[in-house]
Amino acid sequence: MDRTVAAVLEKALSRLFDEPVKVTAAGRTDSGVHASGQVVSLATGAAFPFDRLALALNAVLPADCSVREAAVVEAGFSARFSASRRTYIYAIASRPQRDALTSRYAWHVPEPLEVNPMRAAAAQVVGEHDFRSFCSVLPVGRSNEARSTVRSIYRFTIEPRVGLLRLEITASGFLHRMARSLVGTLVEVGSGRCSGDLAGILAAADRSAAGPIAPAHGLYLAGVRYDDGYDSFAEPPILCR
Amino acid sequence: MDRTVAAVLEKALSRLFDEPVKVTAAGRTDSGVHASGQVVSLATGAAFPFDRLALALNAVLPADCSVREAAVVEAGFSARFSASRRTYIYAIASRPQRDALTSRYAWHVPEPLEVNPMRAAAAQVVGEHDFRSFCSVLPVGRSNEARSTVRSIYRFTIEPRVGLLRLEITASGFLHRMARSLVGTLVEVGSGRCSGDLAGILAAADRSAAGPIAPAHGLYLAGVRYDDGYDSFAEPPILCR
Repeated sequence: MDRTVAAVLEKALSRLFDEPVKVTAAGRTDSGVHASGQVVSLATGAAFPFDRLALALNAVLPADCSVREAAVVEAGFSARFSASRRTYIYAIASRPQRDALTSRYAWHVPEPLEVNPMRAAAAQVVGEHDFRSFCSVLPVGRSNEARSTVRSIYRFTIEPRVGLLRLEITASGFLHRMARSLVGTLVEVGSGRCSGDLAGILAAADRSAAGPIAPAHGLYLAGVRYDDGYDSFAEPPILCR
Repeated sequence: MDRTVAAVLEKALSRLFDEPVKVTAAGRTDSGVHASGQVVSLATGAAFPFDRLALALNAVLPADCSVREAAVVEAGFSARFSASRRTYIYAIASRPQRDALTSRYAWHVPEPLEVNPMRAAAAQVVGEHDFRSFCSVLPVGRSNEARSTVRSIYRFTIEPRVGLLRLEITASGFLHRMARSLVGTLVEVGSGRCSGDLAGILAAADRSAAGPIAPAHGLYLAGVRYDDGYDSFAEPPILCR
């Protein structure tokens, strides 16, 4: 199995609590995907000074995984099922030459990208839609709701930065590889290889209608919002202003 | 020997030119130090379409080393000896908890740092001084000039960013570990462990008078300026605005 943030966290927590720990993560972070605002929840009977849990975790976690804060929450809270919206950010290094210092944190696309057609295409997927065309593995479950490929995108922005293109997508939830399929398709639009008819791709309800899947290393789970107003959003360092 | 940017470049150039190549680098980048604006020069008799050298190098260099541009220059030009000033930037992750996404690109300092005493201390080293106290290994050479530990700092700024402190030093040249010794000493000042009498440390002309050497992974050779006005300056991605 690939190394994942959840597995790395579970190992550290199991060590601190001296018992097996399973965490529930708010959003998908497939192997290679970064997170600046992931949220996880867990249940434990362990006695631990939880106000010092973040510090203790950061002392035992590897350098490429860190915790911003930890808190005791009410029973029944789930980082995943209590979340109302997730925000992913995708960083594209949009420049002719590749750049060593961003190579692990942005997808290098050497051909010029036209932002306006990308924005027009992105606008077509905002709202409630069946995102089956942008889903690699269909969701499973007993209920129709669990198997549904309908999601709502609340906001989709594309913003040029110095040498970078910053894409931000906020949605009710994301299907398997949905964010990366959307980004991969938009890059086809920006480079002129695809017409930009995302409404047509949605209507096809067929994975082969969409563009390729953008690589994992440009993607960040940037924030998760809950009904009580809590939002874990943090800008990825490479895109800081 | 430690892996260095110069050695990695020489290997790639030797492969492209099919002859042994030695490069002259404008500024020190010890093992672990980053560079966003390094300049190197080399002499070769090889026939090569030099207008495509940057592209060819980026195709054969490892992911953590890339070339922005390459140009044919007049005989006698030396990236090192023709340079008139160098700029180093140091990134400090100034926050209680460490952060995974910046761990390889900034020095994590958990204790709070007071910026104003750091600025007052930095101001004392601006100008022409004997920087022997901030030098790990004294320069060698036949002439008094080559062995001189006198350098001129033209500009030294300290600027807070979100969760980061950005230090920028422009000087005629830097002695061995001079930039990191200055930063390490300023962190002692900012945390209140050192008085901030940098004039006194300069006057001592003794390495043991200065503070510790800041770690390599927060330092960037950001730019080199030449008398003809060319400046290779590029902001490190972690500090982009």
